[in-house]
Amino acid sequence: MLLGQSILGSKRGAKSGATFSAVNPATGKQIDPAFHSASEQDVQTAAQLAEEAFAIYGKLPGKEKGAFLRHIAKGLEGIADQLVERANLETGLPTKRLQGEVARTANQLRLFAEVVEEGSWAMARIDPAEPNRAPLPRADIRSMLRPLGPVVVFGASNFPLAFSVAGGDTASALAAGNPVIVKAHPAHPGTSELVGQIIQQSVRDCGLPPGVFALLFDSGTQIGGALVQHPFVKAVGFTGSLAGGKALMQLAASRPDPIPCYAEMSSTNPLFVLPEALRMRGPQIATGLFGSFTLGSGQFCTKPGLVFLPQNEHADGLVEEVKKNVAAAPEFLMLTGGIRSHYESTAAERQKRDNLELLAKSSRTNTDESFQVASMLLQATGNELLQDSELAREMFGPSTLVVRYSDRKQLLEIARSLEGHLTATLQGTEADIAEYADLIAILERKVGRLIVNGYPTGVEVCHAMVHGGPFPATSDGRSTSVGSQAIYRFTRPVCYQDFPQAALPEELQNENPLHIWRMVNGQLTREALAQ
Amino acid sequence: MLLGQSILGSKRGAKSGATFSAVNPATGKQIDPAFHSASEQDVQTAAQLAEEAFAIYGKLPGKEKGAFLRHIAKGLEGIADQLVERANLETGLPTKRLQGEVARTANQLRLFAEVVEEGSWAMARIDPAEPNRAPLPRADIRSMLRPLGPVVVFGASNFPLAFSVAGGDTASALAAGNPVIVKAHPAHPGTSELVGQIIQQSVRDCGLPPGVFALLFDSGTQIGGALVQHPFVKAVGFTGSLAGGKALMQLAASRPDPIPCYAEMSSTNPLFVLPEALRMRGPQIATGLFGSFTLGSGQFCTKPGLVFLPQNEHADGLVEEVKKNVAAAPEFLMLTGGIRSHYESTAAERQKRDNLELLAKSSRTNTDESFQVASMLLQATGNELLQDSELAREMFGPSTLVVRYSDRKQLLEIARSLEGHLTATLQGTEADIAEYADLIAILERKVGRLIVNGYPTGVEVCHAMVHGGPFPATSDGRSTSVGSQAIYRFTRPVCYQDFPQAALPEELQNENPLHIWRMVNGQLTREALAQ
Repeated sequence: MLLGQSILGSKRGAKSGATFSAVNPATGKQIDPAFHSASEQDVQTAAQLAEEAFAIYGKLPGKEKGAFLRHIAKGLEGIADQLVERANLETGLPTKRLQGEVARTANQLRLFAEVVEEGSWAMARIDPAEPNRAPLPRADIRSMLRPLGPVVVFGASNFPLAFSVAGGDTASALAAGNPVIVKAHPAHPGTSELVGQIIQQSVRDCGLPPGVFALLFDSGTQIGGALVQHPFVKAVGFTGSLAGGKALMQLAASRPDPIPCYAEMSSTNPLFVLPEALRMRGPQIATGLFGSFTLGSGQFCTKPGLVFLPQNEHADGLVEEVKKNVAAAPEFLMLTGGIRSHYESTAAERQKRDNLELLAKSSRTNTDESFQVASMLLQATGNELLQDSELAREMFGPSTLVVRYSDRKQLLEIARSLEGHLTATLQGTEADIAEYADLIAILERKVGRLIVNGYPTGVEVCHAMVHGGPFPATSDGRSTSVGSQAIYRFTRPVCYQDFPQAALPEELQNENPLHIWRMVNGQLTREALAQ
Repeated sequence: MLLGQSILGSKRGAKSGATFSAVNPATGKQIDPAFHSASEQDVQTAAQLAEEAFAIYGKLPGKEKGAFLRHIAKGLEGIADQLVERANLETGLPTKRLQGEVARTANQLRLFAEVVEEGSWAMARIDPAEPNRAPLPRADIRSMLRPLGPVVVFGASNFPLAFSVAGGDTASALAAGNPVIVKAHPAHPGTSELVGQIIQQSVRDCGLPPGVFALLFDSGTQIGGALVQHPFVKAVGFTGSLAGGKALMQLAASRPDPIPCYAEMSSTNPLFVLPEALRMRGPQIATGLFGSFTLGSGQFCTKPGLVFLPQNEHADGLVEEVKKNVAAAPEFLMLTGGIRSHYESTAAERQKRDNLELLAKSSRTNTDESFQVASMLLQATGNELLQDSELAREMFGPSTLVVRYSDRKQLLEIARSLEGHLTATLQGTEADIAEYADLIAILERKVGRLIVNGYPTGVEVCHAMVHGGPFPATSDGRSTSVGSQAIYRFTRPVCYQDFPQAALPEELQNENPLHIWRMVNGQLTREALAQ
């Protein structure tokens, strides 16, 4: 049952705050119940509880954190139908996609459970004492990763489950030992509350301090801002717009004690169709490309929004195929009225420029309350893009921009001019890939993930995944928000010099009771330390 | 031979810039030759060369980078006498200390050489394709750490070798594959030029692109600021004052594309003498403490500047011992006139407050041109410190502040109120350490390194060292500037999806040609990948 109140540890927030409601994208109508915005006092309570919880939760053994994460995963699967139904109402995303997202969210939690149960993630390092070293003896030096403290996570509009209340940032922060305070995305508060209740119950069932988790509602930016500035908060995770992310980066950097802010913000995900592949399978690429840039109504941060093609007949053929697909496309439902307006105003603004051609647009019968938009295929020349880098900026929705470059030299020049993106994709034969090694070398500096002969949408949750990239794709290109490496974002190394065994964390004790991989004198080993 | 000109790849900077000279701390007199400040054009040249060099150097095999680092180390050892002589003139640091610093600087370079020759540092991860997975096949996902691009390193005044031109940041940045542009510290330009010449020669001898290294002189802040803001620069390493570090953090964060800035700034390194140890070996601790806070004239970032003692007779006895040591101490030579003035004005300012007692001060016969100061022992109560956190701020020089706390409750309250520091030290028996687990738990969140029964000065260069800590000790508590883990600060992960073998970096190829440790499907292994 939805109460419309924030979750503060084992309690609920007051019913006093201004209210807001979710809106059904298919009808434009409000959905019950009303949600109460949190107060500054709620922020203080959540932060205080998180700070208190950290003393215990930050040192919880990996097996117990793993059990907690698995408990949440099981809880979510237990209410999967209810979650999918509510999320569908609030986001308009198809049922099948949402079922997949529940599964992915649970699997993410289990992946991090595996990582902390196994334990080697903590990067334990031991350099034993050398009492007889000359001219000076060496002390016993040991270090490992420790959690940072309370982490604030902002739910994302476009992944109501996998990047929201129990999403990737929450899972990685909890896995590393950090209490989490989630600021729910106001577009799907009901889904958020359902998930929050599962986590709250899991905290209780696992006997953890209540402040390990909190969930705050707010339709505006005030509560989020207050959270990022709270002295007890030690890091921020955000997935959203460039403007929102930059505002949070600024808040985090201007605190009396600046804290890390991981914001995933804006990416156009350039896709390059190389010559031989273009000749051999242009129409096939056209189909794949159309599927990728319209998937989820183009509301993926990995949507390919820039497609580079030469000026030849094979490229003309590919473009024709995409045009046909766009023209025949159904309407696309957007997540919120705000996203719909932004998509349409950006499209209108770009079309006013004389450097952009609208090649195709799908029809739209329904122009009333529902949040529907048309798919668009736009085109510019390489010169036009070089002269107006604004064209390369993200346009969130079911559109893409084809850029027709004049020659290879121009292609490399454009690649060098690109800002940071999450991904870059190459469609190419092995010969193409070898031939365009210089292009790939440029792109390696621009993105977090390079894809050959696939499409950027669809981010595998695994150990080797990197979902990140240089600014403005993210605030911090040294990190990933997807995959098990994300556990590192909410940690810092702590070093223990000449500590007695009993005062050391288990990870660093001589006998290696957790049987984890450690670096001893520079060598990886799972052996106990020779006495 | 010293030319007094910046080093720009294989060339030298113009002789047109305003000149400045080093000053001998023992005499206050200028030392030849004059050094020419770099120009904005020199900044542009250095950045352009570094950017060009990165395309090659960023992909250089570990063995070649290792050879380069070893070549520099050998070169420095080859001119050790000359380096020590010049550094002694410019810094007043004793010959023996400087000989040790040459050795340490060479050893740091060799430690990073080992790390990159071995190769496992790159954290290669492979999740092989699962073409038959349902409902969707899994792509082949591989990732590893890559260098960021040109890095700017600021030389530190207090380590003319180990934290300057070929110091820790330079070594770790070069090891990871980043070209380095050093802004020399104006207090030891001659030492800087000698070291810069060795690196320049090593670049040449190893056949590397000239832009791998540059060294720029400037007596002010203009050139440093221009470097941090240059679009080609991708990260910053700095060791120095809080004001200087905060200014660079601000510059790095306010770029159109914010970049990581690792500034090590300010730390008072609290030291706690626990009850049993105090009873058993107070006088011994007094001697060790005095040695530590006056080492290098108290100009170490790890100087213990806050000493916590209870209000009992054992503590009185320890304080008496320190007083005797201070009163009998010789004069202390400071690195620069600016540091001397700052030490003296800070001491005068603090003594004006009525919450600080001067317990002892060493005599100073020489009050003329040399940069000498007196050692000082100050005291305050726990209450006074709680009411005036300014007292806990770093005072760079041969002084320390004894804080007499009223009881254990107050001690914990003070510990909770501390800002971030590089280190915290506990003098205690095993029983003390067990008894004060709550204090240690608080300190773990405040510092990068915890020391039992040692002193914080003396930072071992090894694999497990952490020389870092929460703000304001550093700008980024997730990192260390000493030890082999420092290689991670100038890297980011890059992911390769479905790449043909030939297009993959060697680290990620199936056969594991470098025989490095990799994570395959979440398990560490050095085996080749089963085909």
